Amino acid sequence: MERIHVSTRSPQCMEDITAQVSDAVRRSGVEEGICHLFVTHTTAGLVINENDDPEVVRDLLEKLEALAPSDAAYHHLEGNSHSHIKSSLVGQSAAAPVAGGRLALGRWQAVFFAEFDGPREREVLLQVVAARATETPAEELSRERQAEP
Amino acid sequence: MERIHVSTRSPQCMEDITAQVSDAVRRSGVEEGICHLFVTHTTAGLVINENDDPEVVRDLLEKLEALAPSDAAYHHLEGNSHSHIKSSLVGQSAAAPVAGGRLALGRWQAVFFAEFDGPREREVLLQVVAARATETPAEELSRERQAEP
Amino acid sequence: MERIHVSTRSPQCMEDITAQVSDAVRRSGVEEGICHLFVTHTTAGLVINENDDPEVVRDLLEKLEALAPSDAAYHHLEGNSHSHIKSSLVGQSAAAPVAGGRLALGRWQAVFFAEFDGPREREVLLQVVAARATETPAEELSRERQAEP
Repeated sequence: MERIHVSTRSPQCMEDITAQVSDAVRRSGVEEGICHLFVTHTTAGLVINENDDPEVVRDLLEKLEALAPSDAAYHHLEGNSHSHIKSSLVGQSAAAPVAGGRLALGRWQAVFFAEFDGPREREVLLQVVAARATETPAEELSRERQAEP
Repeated sequence: MERIHVSTRSPQCMEDITAQVSDAVRRSGVEEGICHLFVTHTTAGLVINENDDPEVVRDLLEKLEALAPSDAAYHHLEGNSHSHIKSSLVGQSAAAPVAGGRLALGRWQAVFFAEFDGPREREVLLQVVAARATETPAEELSRERQAEP
Repeated sequence: MERIHVSTRSPQCMEDITAQVSDAVRRSGVEEGICHLFVTHTTAGLVINENDDPEVVRDLLEKLEALAPSDAAYHHLEGNSHSHIKSSLVGQSAAAPVAGGRLALGRWQAVFFAEFDGPREREVLLQVVAARATETPAEELSRERQAEP
């Protein structure tokens, strides 16, 4: 398991963490599998969407604010109930495929840490699971040894 | 695979199933990996969010009801179209990391079964996948045997 | 990893891909595990919900359109900001359990490709991860070999 640290810069924002995720996938040594991301917070989430035009995530943040306004009345009295709701709408976890030892995102996709109660120091847990256990290097090695006379 | 049984107590509610999920993770024997949860129903979902203040999930349920009111007009005539919609907004599956043999939730996180068409008897399927197959006990054993003269 | 090709038939629709997913799970040879699905696009998503009454997904599409209207004003000027938002609300990935070598969906569940900016030629990446690496056929074989005198 790896931990990705994210310093978010405003109350509600999307921080692009694709580079850190890609690096961790390469370090894992997994050729084929799934990269799991998990936010350990309850007022933030993960979004995989376009980073080419920053207006895309701006529109998403504005829509989430329209759906769960930060200044509306809520039962939870800490002032961040809207953040908990936004977190549950986009989700605290994400998964993306690993192929050829690389994070296999689509051409326009990026991984964003979605901050709904910042700015804060945040953390994402990352784990890479191999799709076929018998293809990991250690396994290959043990099979080769068995094949030797 | 394990099955977690959930008896929901009202039409729309969040049942905390963190203890059952944690127990199943310990029983799996997996040290490092991912715990997958899946709801086999179409009018319920899974939410990972705060359980310290019950007003947090109350706010979330009220917001979902505002977004997809149970008494609005829908094409589907069984009276539970709002439940299907809420289920798709929060999701029928969830994944959380396993580290050191334990469910690695954040300090404020709990796993909730989200009921949108209850009360009912419900089921969650749970599977734990190891992050590095070569580190499972059976593998360790087989490597040790190979190392013996 | 497998690629499932989807030809969507209208601007916003749900295409049932359960049969293709089930076939790929069987081909994988994994008995117990998780089937991961990932959409490599930013204006489409994945939904697991009822396919018995087509009005269920019709209601879901109409609700998403009400939450993020396609004809509203957005900052992103390509006319498909609503599609990016809908994609993030339902999610670009899905995971379902595999048990007994089969996709273990509930009785009423189906896997839908959710198109929000079609019609287009689309792609879903599919990967099956085994829950217990030591039960894969290759592993069984290597253990048998070791057991032989």
